[in-house]
Amino acid sequence: MFSIEILGSASASQVPQWGCDCPACIRAIRDPFFIRRPCSISITTEQGITLIDAGRTDLAERFEYDDIQRFILTHFHMDHVQGLFHLRWATGKTPISVYRPDDINGCDDLYKHSGCLDFQAPWQAFKRYNLGDMLITPLPLNHSKPTFGYFIELGNTHIAYLTDTVGLPASTENFLMDKNIDYCFLDCSDQPSKEPPRNHNDLNIALKIVADIKPNITILTHIGHQFDCWLIENANTLPDNVSIAVDHLKIEIP
Amino acid sequence: MFSIEILGSASASQVPQWGCDCPACIRAIRDPFFIRRPCSISITTEQGITLIDAGRTDLAERFEYDDIQRFILTHFHMDHVQGLFHLRWATGKTPISVYRPDDINGCDDLYKHSGCLDFQAPWQAFKRYNLGDMLITPLPLNHSKPTFGYFIELGNTHIAYLTDTVGLPASTENFLMDKNIDYCFLDCSDQPSKEPPRNHNDLNIALKIVADIKPNITILTHIGHQFDCWLIENANTLPDNVSIAVDHLKIEIP
Repeated sequence: MFSIEILGSASASQVPQWGCDCPACIRAIRDPFFIRRPCSISITTEQGITLIDAGRTDLAERFEYDDIQRFILTHFHMDHVQGLFHLRWATGKTPISVYRPDDINGCDDLYKHSGCLDFQAPWQAFKRYNLGDMLITPLPLNHSKPTFGYFIELGNTHIAYLTDTVGLPASTENFLMDKNIDYCFLDCSDQPSKEPPRNHNDLNIALKIVADIKPNITILTHIGHQFDCWLIENANTLPDNVSIAVDHLKIEIP
Repeated sequence: MFSIEILGSASASQVPQWGCDCPACIRAIRDPFFIRRPCSISITTEQGITLIDAGRTDLAERFEYDDIQRFILTHFHMDHVQGLFHLRWATGKTPISVYRPDDINGCDDLYKHSGCLDFQAPWQAFKRYNLGDMLITPLPLNHSKPTFGYFIELGNTHIAYLTDTVGLPASTENFLMDKNIDYCFLDCSDQPSKEPPRNHNDLNIALKIVADIKPNITILTHIGHQFDCWLIENANTLPDNVSIAVDHLKIEIP
């Protein structure tokens, strides 16, 4: 058995956004249920815990060092890696493997002072890696830094983790079309927009991806506060098999 | 009147350090009083709040946007600026001035995507700036990035904020020698060391600085967990006018 927890579901500014008095930010200030922290998930198997992205800055309080078996990074934007900057100084312990796309810069001095983080050779797109408790295939995404989504096979359960991206490259879409995806975590930062969005999906593009790759269940994530406002005004307008991520939502698979 | 609050007093790894079971880290896990977050202070005057460094990642929860009148940065290491990366996305508000040493790189993409942060032209060493509620003089420090300490005049009260540094450049020491310093916040990351320390003071060097510039009260800060261990074993060994920073300690000056 395994479980997935949404650690965070926010776009870079988080919800509430500092200084904002929009309905979504006011709601999150009043009720912590609606707070969104940096977009990331944990996957817990019998082997240990895998974190996909590390943008939360309270990971040291949430996870014991020895329980974390690996970090898998989608890309090196700060909101996806900022939680690593003090974790790395843990010393005298077994290093933790960090898997990543090929980004020569990384983020600030993470590569230079990697501490307990054991950065592995960059993964190759479409190669299927066997990590023991899961098979994982990196998939190129459309973003302003080298970015991978991931297709993850956990026993018979298939998960697609697709953030950060605007649309999907044809090669990634083709790869996913004939997979039977049980759970798809999909970037949807913005409400439907007339302008073509940059770097992140709006709801129109996200629903187009859903129509193309047909996951059984889609969870929209990397949510911006303005999209949260739109959702307040347009409740119950999403297709039945599409839902909005909530921080700390947990999916248990027997 | 004004007040100073120690927002954080830790070296880069914070206390507790992730995965560490030393007496200082165990103590901080058991009793939040002993937790140390990234080294920084706030100064509150009748005009508003000045933050010196922004390494805490919960500033949005601690401070209202409109209450912050400025950030003053000592340098661009991650543990001193990481709190700015999501704050910057606040939009539609009056930008907040950020004062800084001359560091062409800044940190990651902070300059490129500055958002609500209004980075001012780099300050010049030993120039006395009048900010309205305080006079402030940047002082060069010895560190691995361009770094300023600050001599701050708040009415008749004189404050020296000297982190991060190992020793003091002669010019800075000479500047401070004839000032009547009421409160000195001084980098002391490490217990007394036989090896000459790099980048940060150990207790020997810190006490030498105290002897040279003779502050009325010195508060050692930027404390590492191993120095905390040393302090547990060597209680009551510091001079009377030298104390150890505690997160959330507040100094009120009428």
